[in-house]
Amino acid sequence: MRTRAFTEDRVTLKHGAGGPAMRALIQQLFADGIEDPPGSVGVSAMDDGAALPLGDGRFLVITTDSHVVSPIFFPGGDIGRLAVCGTVNDLAMMGATEVLGLTCAVVVEEGLARKDLARVHASMREACQEAGATIVTGDTKVMGKGQLDGLMLNTAGVALTTHVVRDNGLKAGDRIIVTGTIGDHGFSVLAARNGLDLTGELRSDVAPLNGLVRAALAGGPVSAMKDPTRGGLSSALHEMAEKSGVGVLLDETALPMRLEVRAAAELLGIDPLQVANEGKALLGVRPEFAERVLAALRGHPLGRDAAIVGTCVPQNPGRIVLDTGFGKRLLAEPEGDPMPRIC
Amino acid sequence: MRTRAFTEDRVTLKHGAGGPAMRALIQQLFADGIEDPPGSVGVSAMDDGAALPLGDGRFLVITTDSHVVSPIFFPGGDIGRLAVCGTVNDLAMMGATEVLGLTCAVVVEEGLARKDLARVHASMREACQEAGATIVTGDTKVMGKGQLDGLMLNTAGVALTTHVVRDNGLKAGDRIIVTGTIGDHGFSVLAARNGLDLTGELRSDVAPLNGLVRAALAGGPVSAMKDPTRGGLSSALHEMAEKSGVGVLLDETALPMRLEVRAAAELLGIDPLQVANEGKALLGVRPEFAERVLAALRGHPLGRDAAIVGTCVPQNPGRIVLDTGFGKRLLAEPEGDPMPRIC
Repeated sequence: MRTRAFTEDRVTLKHGAGGPAMRALIQQLFADGIEDPPGSVGVSAMDDGAALPLGDGRFLVITTDSHVVSPIFFPGGDIGRLAVCGTVNDLAMMGATEVLGLTCAVVVEEGLARKDLARVHASMREACQEAGATIVTGDTKVMGKGQLDGLMLNTAGVALTTHVVRDNGLKAGDRIIVTGTIGDHGFSVLAARNGLDLTGELRSDVAPLNGLVRAALAGGPVSAMKDPTRGGLSSALHEMAEKSGVGVLLDETALPMRLEVRAAAELLGIDPLQVANEGKALLGVRPEFAERVLAALRGHPLGRDAAIVGTCVPQNPGRIVLDTGFGKRLLAEPEGDPMPRIC
Repeated sequence: MRTRAFTEDRVTLKHGAGGPAMRALIQQLFADGIEDPPGSVGVSAMDDGAALPLGDGRFLVITTDSHVVSPIFFPGGDIGRLAVCGTVNDLAMMGATEVLGLTCAVVVEEGLARKDLARVHASMREACQEAGATIVTGDTKVMGKGQLDGLMLNTAGVALTTHVVRDNGLKAGDRIIVTGTIGDHGFSVLAARNGLDLTGELRSDVAPLNGLVRAALAGGPVSAMKDPTRGGLSSALHEMAEKSGVGVLLDETALPMRLEVRAAAELLGIDPLQVANEGKALLGVRPEFAERVLAALRGHPLGRDAAIVGTCVPQNPGRIVLDTGFGKRLLAEPEGDPMPRIC
């Protein structure tokens, strides 16, 4: 992967933004010297999670995320729904759609209203029900007033699978499918944070994708999969392309996008391709299976707007060429999400 | 269990202190309505982790903890060592001593020094080596200056076992064994936080206990096990006794305690039985196996000071009677650790 060096003396916001600066920090500090456990998949490659062999043909897929979104409530969801879906989706992206259990660690700033905590918890339970998942263990810490801004959740999750899907399996010729409209989450949170009334009907897309992924995998084989969260579609697709050693020709006119997102993006000058999604996936599929997988996705309520948006090519590995309909240009890889604390 | 109601409108520090107030919050909010997955162990009972059946006689034990200790470096350890050991120990307390993998989610305040992060990471790797564990996946978030006090780590862990040990298995007649000196961690962090020079050779006991537990289990059957972290020995033993429906007669004169801890406790007026330990375990063992398990513990470097410190009785279930050598009194159950952010 194309990563820059982490040379700064201090951590800055870009190191948490999901882009090259974050990857540099992780590779140079956290992943340095990590050895893959025998038979494991995705560990040193920094996939969405790790797949550990259970010795009987099954893999245990495990993943974790901390959630620091601000504000904690936003149109279409809240930090609780985000935490459950984020973890369920990271498992699903590795092909593990049957969740064995989730953990939930809560860190609360002293003084948080009980009703807010209750609302977040109700939302977690609802998301768990949608995903067929259960929170099986947890932890609670309280920090003093001023030591933490509100509420932080960490969720980890485990799921079993016999077939692990990676984010580095794209091959030349593969079609790129996105499972629905892009940019909804990022602009919804941004609007809620700044009290902007620009959203119309815009709501976060935060949803558990394991059912949708199950439908896709039943439709046909999937070469690679990743959810375009922090850093948006651009960051996720760059990472997939780099790890896979292919280029991608992306058809901008085919990208599903709500009018409200287009409007917000223009007004704010923020590229919707760089904005986080929390209920979408990018799939690479061999051309002969693309229509079948697309049909399988569209048959699921969360995949109605799925579309084929690109093709993998052997040229320019790690680069995304955007066909705007008026011409072609190289898509810039974002440093990360253009705003902090989006998830 | 004896829990009070969570009636406050807002979360306060005691809700994170490991005692009855925290249990009330968890039971009324987080655990409310949680159903145990079929065949699972420890979920609704709020054990140190959850044991989920894999369908082949094995259980996957999973646990999580967030770490918010302040300061992040203290005599004998740091937040990184604490995170790895805390998770390894919660797995070990359920009898799962072979760690399959750990997750590590890092949340950093903007501006944290790179060298501090590197030092914490080196410490995590060292603790992993001691425990025979690997960090297999992670997450990195950065919060703005002033939104988080320094650095927070969350670790989750998974391990396999065919025999789950619970914290609620004490029976009348069982001997209570503590694996070494108590109070070391809490007073070390307290001294570091306040710049007190009262510690002499006092260092945190933070260590991975899976090897020690493996030795104990090889020595003989263990009825129940728990590590006395937040809230100290008193909180952990109260929870074990309450869940098991037994009383405990605790011999204060048999409790291993360093002179430095005794001195600090007297000077500060803090009960060392209420102070967190991060490298100790409490075991309940049938009387006929007590000496064998004790010998097995003492044969391990981390168990040299192990001692039999009490006996389970059918009277006063959930209560601890302390025999001070001069008389007997009921041990008060602490609301939690007398200081916040101890782990």
